[in-house]
Amino acid sequence: MANISKKVSWSGRGDDRGERTPLLNGAEDGKYNRHVLNFVFQSLDYDNSENQLFLEEERRMSHMGFRCLETRRWVICGLIGFLTGLIACLIDIAVEKLAGYKYSAVKQNIEKFTEFGGLSISLILWAVLNSAFVMVGAIAVAFFEPFAAGSGIPQIKCYLNGVKIPRVVRLKTLAIKVFGVICSVAGGLAVGKEGPMIHSGAVVAAGVSQGRSTSLKKDFKIFEYFRRDTEKRDFVSAGAAAGVSAAFGAPVGGVLFSLEEGASFWNQMLTWRIFFASMISTFTLNFFLSIYHGKPGELSSPGLINFGRFDSDSVQYNLYEIPLFIIMGALGGVLGALFNVINYWLTIFRIRYIHRPCLQVMEAMLVAAVTATVSFAMIYFSNDCQPLGQDNTEEYSLQLFCADGEYNSMATAFFNTPERSVRSLFHNPPGSYNPLTLGVFTLAYFVLAVWTYGLTVSAGVFIPSLLIGAAWGRLFGILLSTITSSQSIWADPGKYALIGAAAQLGGIVRMTLSLTVILVEATGSVTYGFPIMLVLMTAKIVGDYFIEGLYDVHIKLQSVPFLHWEAPPTSHWLTAREVMSSPVTCFNRVEKVGRIVDVLSNTSTNHNGFPVVILSFLQPGKICGLILRSQLIVLLKHKVFVERASSRLSHRKLQLKDFRDAYPRFPPIQSIHVSQDERECMMDLTEFMNPTPYTVPQETSLPRVFKLFRALGLRHLVVVDNENRVVGLVTRKDLARYHLGKDGLEELHLAQT
Amino acid sequence: MANISKKVSWSGRGDDRGERTPLLNGAEDGKYNRHVLNFVFQSLDYDNSENQLFLEEERRMSHMGFRCLETRRWVICGLIGFLTGLIACLIDIAVEKLAGYKYSAVKQNIEKFTEFGGLSISLILWAVLNSAFVMVGAIAVAFFEPFAAGSGIPQIKCYLNGVKIPRVVRLKTLAIKVFGVICSVAGGLAVGKEGPMIHSGAVVAAGVSQGRSTSLKKDFKIFEYFRRDTEKRDFVSAGAAAGVSAAFGAPVGGVLFSLEEGASFWNQMLTWRIFFASMISTFTLNFFLSIYHGKPGELSSPGLINFGRFDSDSVQYNLYEIPLFIIMGALGGVLGALFNVINYWLTIFRIRYIHRPCLQVMEAMLVAAVTATVSFAMIYFSNDCQPLGQDNTEEYSLQLFCADGEYNSMATAFFNTPERSVRSLFHNPPGSYNPLTLGVFTLAYFVLAVWTYGLTVSAGVFIPSLLIGAAWGRLFGILLSTITSSQSIWADPGKYALIGAAAQLGGIVRMTLSLTVILVEATGSVTYGFPIMLVLMTAKIVGDYFIEGLYDVHIKLQSVPFLHWEAPPTSHWLTAREVMSSPVTCFNRVEKVGRIVDVLSNTSTNHNGFPVVILSFLQPGKICGLILRSQLIVLLKHKVFVERASSRLSHRKLQLKDFRDAYPRFPPIQSIHVSQDERECMMDLTEFMNPTPYTVPQETSLPRVFKLFRALGLRHLVVVDNENRVVGLVTRKDLARYHLGKDGLEELHLAQT
Repeated sequence: MANISKKVSWSGRGDDRGERTPLLNGAEDGKYNRHVLNFVFQSLDYDNSENQLFLEEERRMSHMGFRCLETRRWVICGLIGFLTGLIACLIDIAVEKLAGYKYSAVKQNIEKFTEFGGLSISLILWAVLNSAFVMVGAIAVAFFEPFAAGSGIPQIKCYLNGVKIPRVVRLKTLAIKVFGVICSVAGGLAVGKEGPMIHSGAVVAAGVSQGRSTSLKKDFKIFEYFRRDTEKRDFVSAGAAAGVSAAFGAPVGGVLFSLEEGASFWNQMLTWRIFFASMISTFTLNFFLSIYHGKPGELSSPGLINFGRFDSDSVQYNLYEIPLFIIMGALGGVLGALFNVINYWLTIFRIRYIHRPCLQVMEAMLVAAVTATVSFAMIYFSNDCQPLGQDNTEEYSLQLFCADGEYNSMATAFFNTPERSVRSLFHNPPGSYNPLTLGVFTLAYFVLAVWTYGLTVSAGVFIPSLLIGAAWGRLFGILLSTITSSQSIWADPGKYALIGAAAQLGGIVRMTLSLTVILVEATGSVTYGFPIMLVLMTAKIVGDYFIEGLYDVHIKLQSVPFLHWEAPPTSHWLTAREVMSSPVTCFNRVEKVGRIVDVLSNTSTNHNGFPVVILSFLQPGKICGLILRSQLIVLLKHKVFVERASSRLSHRKLQLKDFRDAYPRFPPIQSIHVSQDERECMMDLTEFMNPTPYTVPQETSLPRVFKLFRALGLRHLVVVDNENRVVGLVTRKDLARYHLGKDGLEELHLAQT
Repeated sequence: MANISKKVSWSGRGDDRGERTPLLNGAEDGKYNRHVLNFVFQSLDYDNSENQLFLEEERRMSHMGFRCLETRRWVICGLIGFLTGLIACLIDIAVEKLAGYKYSAVKQNIEKFTEFGGLSISLILWAVLNSAFVMVGAIAVAFFEPFAAGSGIPQIKCYLNGVKIPRVVRLKTLAIKVFGVICSVAGGLAVGKEGPMIHSGAVVAAGVSQGRSTSLKKDFKIFEYFRRDTEKRDFVSAGAAAGVSAAFGAPVGGVLFSLEEGASFWNQMLTWRIFFASMISTFTLNFFLSIYHGKPGELSSPGLINFGRFDSDSVQYNLYEIPLFIIMGALGGVLGALFNVINYWLTIFRIRYIHRPCLQVMEAMLVAAVTATVSFAMIYFSNDCQPLGQDNTEEYSLQLFCADGEYNSMATAFFNTPERSVRSLFHNPPGSYNPLTLGVFTLAYFVLAVWTYGLTVSAGVFIPSLLIGAAWGRLFGILLSTITSSQSIWADPGKYALIGAAAQLGGIVRMTLSLTVILVEATGSVTYGFPIMLVLMTAKIVGDYFIEGLYDVHIKLQSVPFLHWEAPPTSHWLTAREVMSSPVTCFNRVEKVGRIVDVLSNTSTNHNGFPVVILSFLQPGKICGLILRSQLIVLLKHKVFVERASSRLSHRKLQLKDFRDAYPRFPPIQSIHVSQDERECMMDLTEFMNPTPYTVPQETSLPRVFKLFRALGLRHLVVVDNENRVVGLVTRKDLARYHLGKDGLEELHLAQT
């Protein structure tokens, strides 16, 4: 059962604690309850613990030292960009090669059997090839690293928001993710390789910036200064941006993505570093791909997906087209919401019934086979033949039952990697597609894409969304030019395909600013900036009326305590007194080791931050600091006990390095042995606690608490009375549980799932 | 003397307080001392005062009410965008018309005299026309609203940073600014109309969002909720973005500009609204200009400056060009630093010696005449004739001494508005310019531009910088293709002109991310994104080695307490105890009116925020709130005295509306009459004070204080001891005075200049 939990829930530390319930929140009640927050999730701490050790180190450092650190940050960002670009390059080439082999084989087979009949053999060949690729990928994901499933964007969103999702930035996850995405794209699923790039970039960043790999047990003894949440999160932002940049050739879009999702405090230097990483990433990809394509130095492939060059004549749009764009945006919003609703129910179904790895692999294989079958049937029954153009760039054009010199146009959409299909829809000349073909294709691909997202394979949803949108957008354009009965230039179907693609993608993921920039950069022309923005905004407004964006749906399904930008507007009623957790476990400045061990071992509370108070007869005590579980663990491990120190003068003074070496996988308290004698010793926390934690009075309103917490990226906020005595502690879950429902403010329940 | 102060210093409230010294900081010492902060500048308060009135209002408001507010915010942003676009349109058309008349007149005159001799008359005509235009503009600025001088970008930077620059967002400033920029561009100065758009957008935003004009004494009774610093500053960000967007047709660049300069706390909804305002602004401009140009509905002029379409063949760049770009970036950094250094000394000279309005007008006229003379001489002595192309788009091509069918190429650069000259340098085919012409032009224009920036005219520095850079960039390109001795496509001079323009502009203003995006959007193609970024980064790194960016130089010259992104890295030595102001004037919860009046009237302290403490025999008292000078003024004005309230039951309860009506120009304490009887009354502050001000303990390190202050946009931060007793107060000037000098941390002196 523990194993199952591991497979479906992000929080599932199934491997080290077997007693978790297998299903997600509240599934036991018979009814799936989404109004729950999982309190297993830990927070990242964006606030430095400015204890004496830290201050001593900072004060020792010269101006030159800080310059060096800054230079190192730039070097790391350059490395992140470079490695992310390389990974993107690897994925691209591997997918091209594998898909090339597959389509060549199937094409030969189809050509062989078209004349003599027996195409069912071709179908079987295709389905088997697809299933085989997908099986390999799904096995890797389901059995070796379930956290590599999906696009990883929801997980990265959570990480940047400050929630520690276990195992999400590990090297193993990266390896499985890359391998998995190659298999699933080559396996012909309705997926893209772009989303996983964001996750890959983030993992690269988390790894490089720490200068070591805990998985490989290799410590390069460099970048030790950056071994804390504050610095690591900054680098992960850069990694995510580099991933977006490599995926879409959109360095500015990447920066905006990171900022939109992650940064609460906009720091100019940080933003530039993120931008630098993004630029290096797209440049690296561009450079190596140009060599691979035999045109070294001609930097023409800035991203994994290239929307191609829009012709300068057709890019113009007119004022009267703007209402049309808005209608398309609304349509995209509705279709996107439909996508999300179906996927939501499907995900719940999967969480309940398909949680064994082998079932998951089988489902993935089934989808792969069905995808092949549907594609084949579409191509087979379509009699939409188009003449082969002179400058025909379709690599795998299928003649099938068409006359010589013609090709089957349904095959351009289905018998191809999705990226190429998108490009064809954008750029093929008017008349390349029959409206019926497009309509049927949209429907079929929509169903396949909904079914595919959430499978236990690593794959992204950007490209399928773009493809669906491009198909119905092009259809819209064709219908328009039929209605206006003039083949005028303005109803260029490629333009409407682009707008449709934006609308559909916006309706599903609901990003606006960053997505606008990403799409503008991917098209390589800013002309469409305004229409794309309009369309994305309309899609968001319409879509939000029905359901949240796909990533938010999945985040909610995992009950992550996700902090939005602001507290709910009607929450001024609440004060810190009401939201805080109370009573709080406090320690004295000099505390008995036994008590610390007991408190840390208490699994029922599992607190991570403890106010340190001045010993007094009055309860509660006056605050004088804050200490973290992780710090206490290190102190216990090194046995920094007062009696010991006095008896053994050679006792080494604990340094920041000791804390950094233990970061981020601090051992559990159970693994530390404290003898009965030692339990009677005392521990002096003065030097290690943060002496100036942020505090708020009890009367502070929730929005004010929220603002402080969010702006500074806190993990613990101490609530004090007017005598500075600790009365409560506010953590992420206390704030995340208030949200705006249909009937006003609602409170989520907390549960350990 | 007061009058003079008003003319040269941003802080100069010369109109209401005449006793200020005329010169800027420390000029009396004989040596100009830049290490000074002017403590006359007030801060904006980005932190809501959550007093009882505020909370009551927020709690009364339903969910629907908040929705309404949100809708209103969007409407305001739409209006801001629309009006900013209209203003840009007005400026553009007026400049086109006026410059058109001028150049036609001069051209006719030159043509008339070319054959017969007597061109000196043409020169005089040109110089007189220029001087006349500039005189009108300079008189308007110097005599009516000195705050409309310059580009306004440094002032807006300060405003967004949280410094209240008096009179900077008033309607009168806007009117003079718009009028002034039309005059100075039409007057042929080496200036652009783009910078002032940013200021104009900000003023529009500040006006529209308040739903009234204090200058016109007109209150529309709408948007009253937004009458406070928090909301106003958000709208001003949107206005600045809309200005950038209209100026360069760069909506994303506008958003990034606002964020880079202003926002400390990135809020997703706010960003979207800013983006919306930007989009509406560029769209409005586009729409009306297309009508003006007789092609309604063809949205082809997204910004005031249009870099034109770069040809798809020449836009490619090769790997081996990258080192060349970096060299150009370094060159731009050096030239930019030179520009800034010269302008710095020139500005100091101006502050000392040219502070009478009539002198200022005369200087501006002199510069205008010299500009005309230099231009004329350049054209006259140049014998660089080029054949008139078929698709020649030069509107004012001068034949002069050239053969028929040819034109003088120097004239394309000088006898034209700078925007057109930039476009010619980018797009004229190779061979249009003689290297010597370009070299001389660069030199002449550099000198003119340095001299012009800082004149008492309203004008921007973007276009002259671009023009200088484009000229030497093109020269660089021509030299390159001469050296490589092949007229190969890669050494397209237009491309190098673009890179040079970016390098020069980057070297002067030192923006990176937002400027990259602005330039990419202005060129309409993302292909150059990477080279532009590289060039801007190099220019910044090289330029920063010598001197700060031009805007920062001017901000420093005004001794504004500008808060950078982070505290200086080596400032961990300092704690709140050292940086705070102490002792603090505190009030009791129920305070005697007489004492309040006395404290507020004390001009030597001039505090703006007062901690409210619980009456106790121990000194200092325990904090229980914070009240602002502006709030006390309103209370005194409405005579909210305890004895009065009990005697007259009908006494109206003070509402938030009363505070909002007084915002932002609260009357000075001297204008409020308090009788001797009233002085003996008591005032209960409980309801009006902010009961939960942010506090920090005395031991908090400076970087930690800084982070809290900057992230939340505070104005006052109370420092308390461990009994919660007030021991000090940290304000903006306490933090801004620490900065990193050559020898480590330096402390600026405070002075009232």
